[in-house]
Amino acid sequence: MKENKLKEYLTSNMNIDESEIAHFIDSCQTKNVVRGEFLLMENQNCNHTFFVEKGLLRQYSIDRNGKEHILSFAPENWFVTDRETTYFGKPSVSYIQALEDSQVVLIDEDLIQLLSGKLPTFSNFNNRLLHNHIRHLHDRIRLLLSASAEERYLEFINMYPDIFLRVPQAMVASYLGITPESLSRVRKKLAAKDTEM
Amino acid sequence: MKENKLKEYLTSNMNIDESEIAHFIDSCQTKNVVRGEFLLMENQNCNHTFFVEKGLLRQYSIDRNGKEHILSFAPENWFVTDRETTYFGKPSVSYIQALEDSQVVLIDEDLIQLLSGKLPTFSNFNNRLLHNHIRHLHDRIRLLLSASAEERYLEFINMYPDIFLRVPQAMVASYLGITPESLSRVRKKLAAKDTEM
Repeated sequence: MKENKLKEYLTSNMNIDESEIAHFIDSCQTKNVVRGEFLLMENQNCNHTFFVEKGLLRQYSIDRNGKEHILSFAPENWFVTDRETTYFGKPSVSYIQALEDSQVVLIDEDLIQLLSGKLPTFSNFNNRLLHNHIRHLHDRIRLLLSASAEERYLEFINMYPDIFLRVPQAMVASYLGITPESLSRVRKKLAAKDTEM
Repeated sequence: MKENKLKEYLTSNMNIDESEIAHFIDSCQTKNVVRGEFLLMENQNCNHTFFVEKGLLRQYSIDRNGKEHILSFAPENWFVTDRETTYFGKPSVSYIQALEDSQVVLIDEDLIQLLSGKLPTFSNFNNRLLHNHIRHLHDRIRLLLSASAEERYLEFINMYPDIFLRVPQAMVASYLGITPESLSRVRKKLAAKDTEM
């Protein structure tokens, strides 16, 4: 069944009439991917952002030693994109993979530009998303620079309340920049605290 | 003497006539600060972005243990802002301080919004700056997650070629998320390599 979360997301977050964006939504292709399938691999070219209608994606990069680093998780109602290729037209620097069977909407960058030029409300909203994303990245840098494993973990479950139950613990550790062992210790410590209370 | 780097920066980076942005530039206040002076402190409200005409700023936050963490350096022709307050209207989460006697232009967020609505070229350029900033933050997260002290240092001198000579080594270490001792070791190692060649 085709979900329609994108329309719902846009109309509830923007002061805009459904009819004004109906054509935009209809122009976007919807794609179903199974768990493990890739929407994007490194060094590919791609001109769309993915909006998750259903399921869960992860975006990650692989360093020169072959180690994976999770850049983001994208559950329902999240956008995920490799800006390097989508916006800057260079080969992508990351992988985008389904962690669950998922349904995504493919939003062309050209379409975003076109709509931004036509509808100031859309342009402002898009701008707000960018600013918000920057804010979130700054927070993450602050955490990576200063926070203990425990603080990073608490921040993570605050931002992604249900993802911990949906992905392997090793991926969460990778996102947090800590070892799986360190994550295990933190969880045990917090569980012990809970029991004490 | 009043510098005029902002006008130069905008006209050389946008396909725009000087006359179209003359009023914008003239509306912006210019401020001179001496070394050590703060343009912004934590928990303040502020609605402008700073453009550095001359000198050098740093943006940093202080964690709960009182430790400083450098978020960015801003030499000539860089923009620096605390988005939390400028864009989202909340109290600022960082400090912006002059590391050298500096001259900055104060750009009101309202003015950016106004000009973006009027001039598509300006709006696109502003958008591009946001995307570019996100790209840069992603790179930094990738480095913090995966790179060795040596890789981080090499990336740093690639991005900020002359800043190393202008700021204390401890600040560079703070930006890189490594200890000053580790930075010292890396520099010695690289200097030894240079001598060998």
